[in-house]
Amino acid sequence: MKTPLYGIIPPLVTPLIDNDHLDIDGLERLIEHVIAGGVHGIFILGTTGEAQSLSYALRTEMIKESSRILNERLPLLVGISDTSIVDSILLARIAADFGANALVSAPPYYFATGQPELAEFYENLIPQLPLPVFLYNMPTHTKVSFAPSTVKRIAENSKVIGFKDSSANGAYFQAVMYEMRKHENFSIFVGPEEMMAEVVLLGANGGVNGGANMFPRLYVNLYNAARNKEIDRVHLLQSKVMQISSSIYSIGSFGSSYLKGVKTTLSILGICNDFLAAPFNKFGEIQYMKIKQILETLDLTE
Amino acid sequence: MKTPLYGIIPPLVTPLIDNDHLDIDGLERLIEHVIAGGVHGIFILGTTGEAQSLSYALRTEMIKESSRILNERLPLLVGISDTSIVDSILLARIAADFGANALVSAPPYYFATGQPELAEFYENLIPQLPLPVFLYNMPTHTKVSFAPSTVKRIAENSKVIGFKDSSANGAYFQAVMYEMRKHENFSIFVGPEEMMAEVVLLGANGGVNGGANMFPRLYVNLYNAARNKEIDRVHLLQSKVMQISSSIYSIGSFGSSYLKGVKTTLSILGICNDFLAAPFNKFGEIQYMKIKQILETLDLTE
Amino acid sequence: MKTPLYGIIPPLVTPLIDNDHLDIDGLERLIEHVIAGGVHGIFILGTTGEAQSLSYALRTEMIKESSRILNERLPLLVGISDTSIVDSILLARIAADFGANALVSAPPYYFATGQPELAEFYENLIPQLPLPVFLYNMPTHTKVSFAPSTVKRIAENSKVIGFKDSSANGAYFQAVMYEMRKHENFSIFVGPEEMMAEVVLLGANGGVNGGANMFPRLYVNLYNAARNKEIDRVHLLQSKVMQISSSIYSIGSFGSSYLKGVKTTLSILGICNDFLAAPFNKFGEIQYMKIKQILETLDLTE
Amino acid sequence: MKTPLYGIIPPLVTPLIDNDHLDIDGLERLIEHVIAGGVHGIFILGTTGEAQSLSYALRTEMIKESSRILNERLPLLVGISDTSIVDSILLARIAADFGANALVSAPPYYFATGQPELAEFYENLIPQLPLPVFLYNMPTHTKVSFAPSTVKRIAENSKVIGFKDSSANGAYFQAVMYEMRKHENFSIFVGPEEMMAEVVLLGANGGVNGGANMFPRLYVNLYNAARNKEIDRVHLLQSKVMQISSSIYSIGSFGSSYLKGVKTTLSILGICNDFLAAPFNKFGEIQYMKIKQILETLDLTE
Repeated sequence: MKTPLYGIIPPLVTPLIDNDHLDIDGLERLIEHVIAGGVHGIFILGTTGEAQSLSYALRTEMIKESSRILNERLPLLVGISDTSIVDSILLARIAADFGANALVSAPPYYFATGQPELAEFYENLIPQLPLPVFLYNMPTHTKVSFAPSTVKRIAENSKVIGFKDSSANGAYFQAVMYEMRKHENFSIFVGPEEMMAEVVLLGANGGVNGGANMFPRLYVNLYNAARNKEIDRVHLLQSKVMQISSSIYSIGSFGSSYLKGVKTTLSILGICNDFLAAPFNKFGEIQYMKIKQILETLDLTE
Repeated sequence: MKTPLYGIIPPLVTPLIDNDHLDIDGLERLIEHVIAGGVHGIFILGTTGEAQSLSYALRTEMIKESSRILNERLPLLVGISDTSIVDSILLARIAADFGANALVSAPPYYFATGQPELAEFYENLIPQLPLPVFLYNMPTHTKVSFAPSTVKRIAENSKVIGFKDSSANGAYFQAVMYEMRKHENFSIFVGPEEMMAEVVLLGANGGVNGGANMFPRLYVNLYNAARNKEIDRVHLLQSKVMQISSSIYSIGSFGSSYLKGVKTTLSILGICNDFLAAPFNKFGEIQYMKIKQILETLDLTE
Repeated sequence: MKTPLYGIIPPLVTPLIDNDHLDIDGLERLIEHVIAGGVHGIFILGTTGEAQSLSYALRTEMIKESSRILNERLPLLVGISDTSIVDSILLARIAADFGANALVSAPPYYFATGQPELAEFYENLIPQLPLPVFLYNMPTHTKVSFAPSTVKRIAENSKVIGFKDSSANGAYFQAVMYEMRKHENFSIFVGPEEMMAEVVLLGANGGVNGGANMFPRLYVNLYNAARNKEIDRVHLLQSKVMQISSSIYSIGSFGSSYLKGVKTTLSILGICNDFLAAPFNKFGEIQYMKIKQILETLDLTE
Repeated sequence: MKTPLYGIIPPLVTPLIDNDHLDIDGLERLIEHVIAGGVHGIFILGTTGEAQSLSYALRTEMIKESSRILNERLPLLVGISDTSIVDSILLARIAADFGANALVSAPPYYFATGQPELAEFYENLIPQLPLPVFLYNMPTHTKVSFAPSTVKRIAENSKVIGFKDSSANGAYFQAVMYEMRKHENFSIFVGPEEMMAEVVLLGANGGVNGGANMFPRLYVNLYNAARNKEIDRVHLLQSKVMQISSSIYSIGSFGSSYLKGVKTTLSILGICNDFLAAPFNKFGEIQYMKIKQILETLDLTE
């Protein structure tokens, strides 16, 4: 795997039959679908991948099957976020054994730490990891945000090869970019797809965007347009991303609307099952039909 | 185990040698210490027990060793809170296999759910559990609070035998008490020890108070005074609890001060090791000496 | 006015005809109603009084009319919380001119301050005030909570005669009580009525409870029962307070349900108008009828 | 005033001698300074202008003096955010009387409203205003964020000519841009200067950036570079903005560091006094010297 990583790396959903079984056929179709769409890597067992809702056994199977299907065609990043450092390391070793290329780690998410404890946690964890690692900022879920200076401190270890920010805070994102400006092989990715083009225009490496599960080519094209500074084309493609964001992710009133929207769409597209792991449920009939209708009216042609 | 449970049920700290090893001698001394102090049950693998920071293997060992040492002298409650329903059930079965009496479950703590999803999660989980269960409200850590009506809805299943509230919200606590007033065998416990006496005076069943790890007799006496409506004695003992709360738990500026204070005190009292699992660290020399000095000036005599 | 203050001091609603006019007849009936109910003082222009939603001219009129009607029969406390220290002092002088007995001040609520700034703000404000003052803790609205040590620091000025806590945090309330235990003439009141009895049992001075606008006698009786350590009577009356809290304050889904419930009830009881100042609206017909129905089934007889 | 507005509109600091007196000479120098820097308008009495900390009398004087000094050379926008609709309208009339061109209004910030109440508040307020108005989103201070659909609903009244977002949420900003895409004369401005260039590249109208008080030319140049799609120049100038943001705004640990940094810098530059209205204090000697040192090493040459 060459660093720095760049481009569109979808945070893969985990296709499920039920709480305890992978939809392996769906996973195969999904991986082929995103590869065909031109993505630059694959990230499994993130928030969109419902990692925390899956048992350790199932996470292990997901690593194994994804690695088998991907077969080294693209970099494979594996989420190892956990509240236990010991189990996190265990998962990292499994990922390495199955040929993953890099790990992704969000802070422990039960007790929230302060900044010094957060830095120390990673200074303790990273030497025990068998692969290079991305830091993953997800403050709505972990209740703590990496201070830009904490990112820099942790990244003094060269095994830390990147940072993914899902805070949606644009001022913060720029602050991290500035703090890390001299780390040439360090990748900075943004989670929320609505911001991907603008941060790439400002120099970020790419996006870990959930929508790329469904429409990988659109996100890759938008990334390329931004990277090539084709502003008019960025405007055109951005409006298509916003079409998706303002419709598919906004059905129902719960925080899980985004995830339900993505899985329902993948199901309608014939790619994989729409089962969500507990504590969430897939959409009911009404919402399903609403998504179907949205998909029929979406205009993603360029 | 007779229901409803009542009294002081310490949320046991998990004595540790390092991130991956129990301090078993310490655990033995700790359990004997709290039994000698008159507590009414023991709750392992809660927030004070750093459950989320421990590997599954270590949590399993903690269940096994606690059960062996306790040897059915008191009810044993085991925390099974997890983000994965499958692993939560797994842990529940292990608890049942080792002779635990009841389970304690906080909501999944990565994704926050809405109230209907929270109720459905428990309606899905509870029938799969081999033991009766307490609901555990811990909104600062889980990002969701059980609405009183949600507690009632979940408690329609008679396997739900109690509720532990660590929100520290006194108005909310009364609202749950009122909502559940007709459930005669249902126990309502409070987490924060500063509020224990007052809620017992108003009819609550008891406290799951961290300070009872260190000074079990004090908390048992305060509980008894409140239960017996001895208000003057409540005032006297409450001031001693507040002495502890306002000193031992308030060293340093981090959210983990409480936990560090308890473990440091237990170490100074010769009961168990003061190692904290990652992401936390035990106190340094200065804070250690401060706690030592506090302990010398504490006046807990009645 | 004798200190320390104690008992039930209703946070008076401000009867309104529209955004810019007092319902003076309603105000007269309301004040007579609470005096007849045995309350120990009156607090105007608090959160329940919608002070922040009223113009300065209207706040001035409310002070003038309340003082006239009350006519020194009970202590009159006037809220002067503002984001501008200058206008806050102005309002304090108006209150003094119209014969108020004490002031009540919550922290500036636009910019949130840190603790040192909060202490310094009050050290700057208090010497410029013409009357003794209560500190008012309302963190959901002001975004900052007085640390117990900050209360103590500010209360070194003997013009600070009390503290009202509307945080609903029971552990915090006890911490402030403990911190201030040696200040004999200092009053500590609780806002949320659901907690009033329990904190009075533990030594607090009383309650500033919104429900006492509607049913002053009930809250006074509950206060007296707690003060007299009549636990069984506390249980009986507490259940009546919880009847109110769990019904009247819980119609609709907005944060203003409590306020709407109180004003609608006062209107149904024939006491005053139910107009709410912008940004809120009074209940519509459906909610009004629901409150009416609740009132018919409430059983407040002892 | 032509609409839509665009460009850099500094949220002017309010130069103060003390809590109750303007530094009028400083205000004159400040306004000339930003005009000389090429800004496109001036916004007084916003968050950076400490409006909420100023008395009504002082806010009135600030409007009068700013209008006099500005003398119609640029559009003058006046913040009327208040918790009282009546006083907000009063302030709006004063602004109109002194020749302001537009008003800026953030939601009432004591009680937080829900979305329907927020929309109704503005549907009530706007017809009573004598001038066109910008909506101002500032959720950290007001505790509520305008939903994109709420912005659209309120903007059905053509007196609503723009939106200023200080949430720093990049995904949200794009959502509002998309929701309002068909409103051709509607201006969308961003508050945090760190995000200004990227949102202008994506089609936003400009920035209301605090840094433009100090270095107006830099922000104007960055705005122009973004508007002209000169990406390399954007990168260069963005790094200079980040130099400022990562140094001047980050001294000390309080939320008011930004404001203190700006006022201290303006004082060192000889433009105006560095007094901050209560509840804040200007920097002490140590922080002052730190800012001085930063200013000496800042490299803002292009």
